[in-house]
Amino acid sequence: MKAELRERIEVIDTSLDAYLPVRDVPQSEIYEAMRYSLFAGGKRLRPILMWECARMLGGSWETVRPFACALEMIHTYSLIHDDLPAMDNDDLRRGLPTNHIKFGEAIAILAGDALLNKAFEIVSEYEHKDVSRAMRAISVLASSSGTEGMIGGQVVDLASEGKDITLPELQYIHLLKTGAIIRSACVIGGILAGAEDDEILAIDEYAKNLGIAFQIRDDILDVTGSEEELGKPIGSDAGKGKNTYVKLLGEWRSEMLVNEFSDKAKAALSRFGDSADMLIKITDYLITRKN
Amino acid sequence: MKAELRERIEVIDTSLDAYLPVRDVPQSEIYEAMRYSLFAGGKRLRPILMWECARMLGGSWETVRPFACALEMIHTYSLIHDDLPAMDNDDLRRGLPTNHIKFGEAIAILAGDALLNKAFEIVSEYEHKDVSRAMRAISVLASSSGTEGMIGGQVVDLASEGKDITLPELQYIHLLKTGAIIRSACVIGGILAGAEDDEILAIDEYAKNLGIAFQIRDDILDVTGSEEELGKPIGSDAGKGKNTYVKLLGEWRSEMLVNEFSDKAKAALSRFGDSADMLIKITDYLITRKN
Repeated sequence: MKAELRERIEVIDTSLDAYLPVRDVPQSEIYEAMRYSLFAGGKRLRPILMWECARMLGGSWETVRPFACALEMIHTYSLIHDDLPAMDNDDLRRGLPTNHIKFGEAIAILAGDALLNKAFEIVSEYEHKDVSRAMRAISVLASSSGTEGMIGGQVVDLASEGKDITLPELQYIHLLKTGAIIRSACVIGGILAGAEDDEILAIDEYAKNLGIAFQIRDDILDVTGSEEELGKPIGSDAGKGKNTYVKLLGEWRSEMLVNEFSDKAKAALSRFGDSADMLIKITDYLITRKN
Repeated sequence: MKAELRERIEVIDTSLDAYLPVRDVPQSEIYEAMRYSLFAGGKRLRPILMWECARMLGGSWETVRPFACALEMIHTYSLIHDDLPAMDNDDLRRGLPTNHIKFGEAIAILAGDALLNKAFEIVSEYEHKDVSRAMRAISVLASSSGTEGMIGGQVVDLASEGKDITLPELQYIHLLKTGAIIRSACVIGGILAGAEDDEILAIDEYAKNLGIAFQIRDDILDVTGSEEELGKPIGSDAGKGKNTYVKLLGEWRSEMLVNEFSDKAKAALSRFGDSADMLIKITDYLITRKN
């Protein structure tokens, strides 16, 4: 599985690289800053999920390439802005200095802006075979990263820092902050591969549950992982007064929930039969990961 | 002219308002922050230009509505981020506290992100009559606000602060930082109204020269305007070591250049005959403005 995913990551990285060359212009520093974070060792989870959801329905990498790269850029921009001093104030990410530590705060803000912007550049510049389908995918992409998606989740997350919140409140944060983008990865894969509406609903149900399982795993790793594996200090979320599943439910209950939600996720794929085998394997791999 | 423009601004503001209601959700603060800057008394120059370029070719407000509102949101996001402490560190804009002074830095960063994102939400959600045309317009919108457009210009502007630069360097900054968005306003108006390629080239030539004239007028007003009219302290750009046309060329030569570039702009519209009358009137109004 690890080798299989490594191959896919290579394909994704090659496309990302082609979409974002360093240009010989007076503003070349912005390209360096964007690339610095884009190639800082991300797991490419979202492009992999989009690709595999499309593949399950007969699509290929080419079916999703611009959208998969766009989503990874949006994910990366959100990390750069989340790390800023005014937000989470993180100096390290994946074992490397964060963007504003490396390039300064002004460039880090602009590199985030630029990655968000570039995402929409590459999906709108592409010569789509089916323009209506592509427009629908852009709409899903944009709404999942906006105020009713990722940004909305970050706003509530920031507001709840250092406060005691309830489980439904925590779930609301993650449904938006990390869940919306994972759902749009999968749903866009389906849309671009020509899925029927009820197939898209099933994919969304899969992704929604996967997103929760994935987030709980993240919270568990924050306290049980090793600094070397995670590339950041252990307990850094807890130390900042962040609300996590482990804080609210404890480690044991959290592990139970990971299993519960990943089972629900996989069950949602039953209608796709054998075509879903690889997606199920990837799901198992992701929710048992160590970093 | 002032009354005519006021009427148009009302139409634009009504549409902006409809696109951005405050929603009763846990993240409602983000909507307040977005609206605070979006309705802080902007001149709506870019939507007016897009609308008028479309009208010149037989289009209407409905032809450009989502794109005109999207462009104003992108313009607003850029102002919010430019004002941040890490960038220009401005406390006042149009006589009001800047977004980060009012809402704090974290929300200001997110409100900027959210306005950029919302721009692409509204243009992709719209039921376009001609989807290919709309996709082309999205592509122009995205590239003009990105690293080879507005963001690229801001990067070079920040890097050149406090340094002596040449006139071509100053022109490069403004061609990207303010010029790219003004050009895309006009070009998108043309595209959506179904302009032929050579008509779009003429519109672009108009917009390019208008953008330069407009920027020089801005630089002149920074030293000759009144604080009351501008809503910010006089000489604030000069005081920050910003490079301006007035600093490089003096006030008199700068006035000459405003006329030169606005003449060039208007000349580019000659092929449109009487249909361009209103656009020419708007041009004259904009480059003789006092704030």
